[in-house]
Amino acid sequence: MTDKASTTTLSADECWEFLGDRPVGRLATAVAGEPDIFPISFAVAERHVVFRTHPGSKLVEVAVNARVAFEADEWTPEVATSVVVKGTAEILDRDADVAAAEATGLVSYLDDGKDVWVRITPTTVTGRRLTR
Amino acid sequence: MTDKASTTTLSADECWEFLGDRPVGRLATAVAGEPDIFPISFAVAERHVVFRTHPGSKLVEVAVNARVAFEADEWTPEVATSVVVKGTAEILDRDADVAAAEATGLVSYLDDGKDVWVRITPTTVTGRRLTR
Repeated sequence: MTDKASTTTLSADECWEFLGDRPVGRLATAVAGEPDIFPISFAVAERHVVFRTHPGSKLVEVAVNARVAFEADEWTPEVATSVVVKGTAEILDRDADVAAAEATGLVSYLDDGKDVWVRITPTTVTGRRLTR
Repeated sequence: MTDKASTTTLSADECWEFLGDRPVGRLATAVAGEPDIFPISFAVAERHVVFRTHPGSKLVEVAVNARVAFEADEWTPEVATSVVVKGTAEILDRDADVAAAEATGLVSYLDDGKDVWVRITPTTVTGRRLTR
């Protein structure tokens, strides 16, 4: 650790700005005390995290316990930034909600006809930036 | 999705080789149904994930529920690889275990005197590579 090393807390605005620039994050779920984690392509829509997925473990776990944590980060040799969103995930079934999610233009890494949108409504958003 | 797009499952050897090359991963924990997620610098020691940390939420959560999931990934425009380790985390308190962890040469992003080593003993290791 040098004299220059520091930890900065990001404001909510800085957190959402950072998330808007990151293409990939990770979703953490918890079912019956078992955490799980999934990399996801995501987008930000009006301070919510949205992503597309298809039927599978992510959706099953979110259906059992909608509480989730989501993280995105960026690392360089000098600066590491990480933002964590905790909140509640829901599958979007209203046309207006789906349209708002579609409007983000998000394309999944494999655009293989995944047709379910999930939205995370945040309860807390925290960000840290480490500089060394 | 082009005709070339594909999903490949990695072997255990490929998973550990991939993890050995990645400097940063994310730890997911679950306490009382609340998932949490933390970016961590990590190393691989004899097919265990080890990392250093200091007293704080990661350690508290692992002490309450030692079940964890850990993920590392790498993305390029053409290839996305992700490996997930599920297992049990423990704080290392035996000198031999700490020495084995120290031997990895892992340096935390901020080397600020963190002095606790944590080891994840895997129950499952899975990896996927998406090519498009």
